[in-house]
Amino acid sequence: MEKKDLVIIGSGPAGLSAAVYAQRAMLDQVVIEKEMFSGGQIVTTDRIDNYLGLYGENGYDLSVKFREHADALGVPFLEDAVKKIENHGTTKEVVLENGDVIEAKAVLLATGAHHKMLQAEGEKELTGAGVSYCATCDGAFFKDQTVAVVGGGDVALEDALYLSNICKNVYLIHRRDGLRGAKVLQNKVLEKENITFMPFYEVTKICGQNKVEAVELKQNQTGETKTIELSGVFIAIGMEPQSSLVKDLVKEDPAGYVEAGEDCRTSADGIYVAGDVRSKSLRQVVTAVADGAVAIASIEQDFARE
Amino acid sequence: MEKKDLVIIGSGPAGLSAAVYAQRAMLDQVVIEKEMFSGGQIVTTDRIDNYLGLYGENGYDLSVKFREHADALGVPFLEDAVKKIENHGTTKEVVLENGDVIEAKAVLLATGAHHKMLQAEGEKELTGAGVSYCATCDGAFFKDQTVAVVGGGDVALEDALYLSNICKNVYLIHRRDGLRGAKVLQNKVLEKENITFMPFYEVTKICGQNKVEAVELKQNQTGETKTIELSGVFIAIGMEPQSSLVKDLVKEDPAGYVEAGEDCRTSADGIYVAGDVRSKSLRQVVTAVADGAVAIASIEQDFARE
Repeated sequence: MEKKDLVIIGSGPAGLSAAVYAQRAMLDQVVIEKEMFSGGQIVTTDRIDNYLGLYGENGYDLSVKFREHADALGVPFLEDAVKKIENHGTTKEVVLENGDVIEAKAVLLATGAHHKMLQAEGEKELTGAGVSYCATCDGAFFKDQTVAVVGGGDVALEDALYLSNICKNVYLIHRRDGLRGAKVLQNKVLEKENITFMPFYEVTKICGQNKVEAVELKQNQTGETKTIELSGVFIAIGMEPQSSLVKDLVKEDPAGYVEAGEDCRTSADGIYVAGDVRSKSLRQVVTAVADGAVAIASIEQDFARE
Repeated sequence: MEKKDLVIIGSGPAGLSAAVYAQRAMLDQVVIEKEMFSGGQIVTTDRIDNYLGLYGENGYDLSVKFREHADALGVPFLEDAVKKIENHGTTKEVVLENGDVIEAKAVLLATGAHHKMLQAEGEKELTGAGVSYCATCDGAFFKDQTVAVVGGGDVALEDALYLSNICKNVYLIHRRDGLRGAKVLQNKVLEKENITFMPFYEVTKICGQNKVEAVELKQNQTGETKTIELSGVFIAIGMEPQSSLVKDLVKEDPAGYVEAGEDCRTSADGIYVAGDVRSKSLRQVVTAVADGAVAIASIEQDFARE
């Protein structure tokens, strides 16, 4: 059985940043990635304007730069999926799909999260071409344009308010009546002149050739249909953290994120978490990259003290 | 009196990242920088290898890239020093050295921290050329070489252990006898074959033409002097957070860092903190950049809820 100081699972921004820090700390590590490429969610992101120092990068190009950084330092990668993780106290066993088992002193989970999809026609095809799952990331690309936000929780309300300062008009589309978000946010949304709240509407189709041009809606109670011309659709109906590998090993919050403070230590000694799969308030490339750095600092501290 | 949504004080990595996020959120902001250039501590850093995606950058070049990113988005800068900040509840007044006053809904302190200097001969001249204040940042540049760590607290011990895995020999130089760091770290340091603990020694001179070649030491009790040939000196005797502007306005920890969780909210509504001046475990470029992003998200949330 192969033995390592550290196994990193996932090679998005969090996993790659951790690998860079671990390599410079001369930890004996391996990074396991189930895809044929690194980068995670950013691989399919059209443009990233808010990672300081790399302005106006295409998500794919950024993911290549990130991976090249790790490669330049000689980080060892393994392309396989992890089947399960076993916690044997001071050592962990990482079991791969191919049957191999790696014994590690520390495991860092950097498996990310997926945005929930509406499953509407045209959504997948137009993702990155007007369909977005992150107002903070992409709002600025829709200055003075008309957009829609889909959802009714805190994030949807915050997104609508955020976008109302940037865009000309914002439609807030919610399949139910009552908004679930904080009352103060609801009041602000209803007060904003350029936000139109559309309760009981569902998005049935996102239309456009190479970019979003309109959405088709259905009123849930009357069956009435409606088309709105716009250039952006922000879908804010929640995320799915990729935390199933550790669900019996560490504490997770009700939404399934791995509970850990900013030090990235989970409830289980020797298991760490970085990036979007961690419980935290802001999921951005740079917060994932920071997590990777902090996780390795915590691991170094724990190794020094054990 | 000029009115702004947000005044950012400082334009190192934290302040610039915050400015990028704030600009994309269309906040009416201004960034105040007392120096003629942005970048903070990295301006004088020789090489930065751990900011993901920008491998092997010279610190000055990185600071230029950071500033250019903010400039490309049209961030407004003001070159002046802040004299004081007054907290009038829902508004703050930022008083400049030139006498101008800016009224702001939110103030973000991103003033950084300085590493304490030994004040030894040659230290200043050789900073970035073998003299370092951050083992995590620079340790990897001294692979298989001989280095010294100066200090006796937790950070000095952790640095010595960290470097012992990378370097050939590590001298731990401490002007007193007893180490102040955690007992478990002390034991590890004393067990490590390639760490030599030198109690009662002070660094009197750091020698070298264009890079560090040796240190001169004095034994405090006997007055005996000694020269050690080496290529790196890591000074770990503490930091000085630049938090005096807010010391009567927000809670600070005993070392003078502004107390704030990962969300960058201080104890005072409307005053936020990002980067090295915040109480946190790891001070790196990327954790400062992440703070800048998170601080703006918190400000956006608070603006939406007020």
